[in-house]
Amino acid sequence: MTEKRSTKPLVAFLGGLNENLPEFKQFTKTFDVVFYELVSREQFVSDLKTKLHNVEAIYGAWAPFGKIGNLDKELVAKLPSSLKLITVCSAGFGGLDLEALRERGIKFCNSPTFGASAVAETVLYHVLNGFRKFGLFEAILRQNPHTIEARSLLGNVKNFDAESGVFVLDHSKKSKYCFGHHVGTIEVHSPVGKTATIIGFGAIGKEVGKRLSSLGMNIIYIKRNKLSPEEEAQLGYKVRYAARIHDVAAESDCIVLCLPATPQSINMINKGVIQLMKKGVILVNVGRGSLINDEDMIQGLKDGHIGFVGLDVFPEEPLVHHCQRQDMSLTPHVGSATSENFDQTAIFCLKNITQYLLHGKIENLQN
Amino acid sequence: MTEKRSTKPLVAFLGGLNENLPEFKQFTKTFDVVFYELVSREQFVSDLKTKLHNVEAIYGAWAPFGKIGNLDKELVAKLPSSLKLITVCSAGFGGLDLEALRERGIKFCNSPTFGASAVAETVLYHVLNGFRKFGLFEAILRQNPHTIEARSLLGNVKNFDAESGVFVLDHSKKSKYCFGHHVGTIEVHSPVGKTATIIGFGAIGKEVGKRLSSLGMNIIYIKRNKLSPEEEAQLGYKVRYAARIHDVAAESDCIVLCLPATPQSINMINKGVIQLMKKGVILVNVGRGSLINDEDMIQGLKDGHIGFVGLDVFPEEPLVHHCQRQDMSLTPHVGSATSENFDQTAIFCLKNITQYLLHGKIENLQN
Repeated sequence: MTEKRSTKPLVAFLGGLNENLPEFKQFTKTFDVVFYELVSREQFVSDLKTKLHNVEAIYGAWAPFGKIGNLDKELVAKLPSSLKLITVCSAGFGGLDLEALRERGIKFCNSPTFGASAVAETVLYHVLNGFRKFGLFEAILRQNPHTIEARSLLGNVKNFDAESGVFVLDHSKKSKYCFGHHVGTIEVHSPVGKTATIIGFGAIGKEVGKRLSSLGMNIIYIKRNKLSPEEEAQLGYKVRYAARIHDVAAESDCIVLCLPATPQSINMINKGVIQLMKKGVILVNVGRGSLINDEDMIQGLKDGHIGFVGLDVFPEEPLVHHCQRQDMSLTPHVGSATSENFDQTAIFCLKNITQYLLHGKIENLQN
Repeated sequence: MTEKRSTKPLVAFLGGLNENLPEFKQFTKTFDVVFYELVSREQFVSDLKTKLHNVEAIYGAWAPFGKIGNLDKELVAKLPSSLKLITVCSAGFGGLDLEALRERGIKFCNSPTFGASAVAETVLYHVLNGFRKFGLFEAILRQNPHTIEARSLLGNVKNFDAESGVFVLDHSKKSKYCFGHHVGTIEVHSPVGKTATIIGFGAIGKEVGKRLSSLGMNIIYIKRNKLSPEEEAQLGYKVRYAARIHDVAAESDCIVLCLPATPQSINMINKGVIQLMKKGVILVNVGRGSLINDEDMIQGLKDGHIGFVGLDVFPEEPLVHHCQRQDMSLTPHVGSATSENFDQTAIFCLKNITQYLLHGKIENLQN
């Protein structure tokens, strides 16, 4: 047997995809595919000269280069001249030197946000935990498998330690009946009739508004420009516009961040704004971790000004702080993480690679 | 100083209420109030002859006599002749001998279900956990405070132990990137476009439908009688009617039980019906624990026919089984447990006592 040399263009996949997709099966008829795992910068540079020397496109399941110190100018210089396109499945990207790529003639594309509903579901989880403390009730029930005891134990807690954010349960104390309408001295509220302010009112913010509105909440949205009356009517639920969080902080029971990090939005939730907020406010972030000043937020929780925080994104992501606090709910950046969305972005990237390598057509070009 | 004997009628409170309510403050102007804790049957019988000998009404924060072996015929016989009314804040009641009370001329009232939205919020929590596994992601993240590692750890789990319902994480194994779109071999789905069947379509079921519809789900409702076209239109979301779960089990991605336990509904979710259900079905129960055959449900989870179960009520409530299973979410019967609802039922009961003792008027009479 002689080795058969492929003449198909080579595409490297970082992070993988659903290999059962018909679109992927079709893709492999046109392209050679290698699944490559980034281990270290040195190994990658070395492999670029050998098994990846003729790679024409790189597919990233997300922005994958952070692991090896980002795709900076130095690393871009080492990319083979065969490389024409890097495409990633995430909407967000960072740490890539887009300019250096452009100078080398390498296109970079991200993916559209297909997962607006999925992110809105994540908001809903955090908002429900904020108002109803379901996660806390569940945690205590699993340790004390008796509905009345679990509620009473949590209801009778006198010493919620605001400093650590931990409920210190006193099992020795005789428990009084608790319906489940408070945990310690903190009341459990229904979101019905409460006000949610959504900061960032693009595709995600609108889906969030729909779901929070169905909870019976009043919706305020904050966006650079007010929607037209026609656009507001198309939402299917009532909204009120505000130009700045400062104007509505005092009347918002719940504030949801659904915007990207930009020089203007970074650190927007800080001590000054927090002090304007209603006492006991529920703060939810599915945008970017850097939107909130972490220290100020924790101070707000400690002094009781903030009642609850729900986070899917974190200031030093992928690192997560405050994992012991019970006045927070935390999800590992799974806002848009559904099987449907994972496949949809994969199909988008496969199509983008095919169209560009075969026909020079490209979508979502970023450089 | 001589002791001032009150001439106001005495009302005993079992389980308490929000004493800051203006309605309660008003109540104490007309009635003498004693907060009484049920400790044992013997103690209660003894106290009925002394400090409770002239009690005219008993207020229960919930159906409170279960703790001392229920309010059976024998105990009813020991109630003082001064007692005219027992009223409880719960909608449900059991273990009271209504007939024996009636023979003694003691009225018994429950409270209306004010908390339909609150119960629907509880359903939403369980449905979100069922589709998106948020609670599981949160638990793993809190142990592994790194978004990518937490997702990868859970995503790479090969050995979900269906027998115990526990995900056995292998920390030693090199982890592959996971977007968060699966936990082990179980896909994480968005509820968008999936079908929810709501069994029991009264006030609670309708609120559940509204919220699940806002998630983008198709709603089927099961009820003894189909709503009129006008009633269906008033819901504000699209529905389809089915007479029996058997007819739609195969097409339902999620089945929510929102009905009371009656001789007809007890054990309605059993082996036979489960076998008709779609593989991976999400089952949520906020009605009564006895609606589901516990053994058949667990068998369904073990053989993979049922994908996830969310429970707020339990077959041997207040005892809760299966607290180690991670393919379930569990809340301690807090469906309607909000501060707003707790106050609303209290106000209803206070008004009912006042109206009956002063004017002979009564609402929600059950005997």
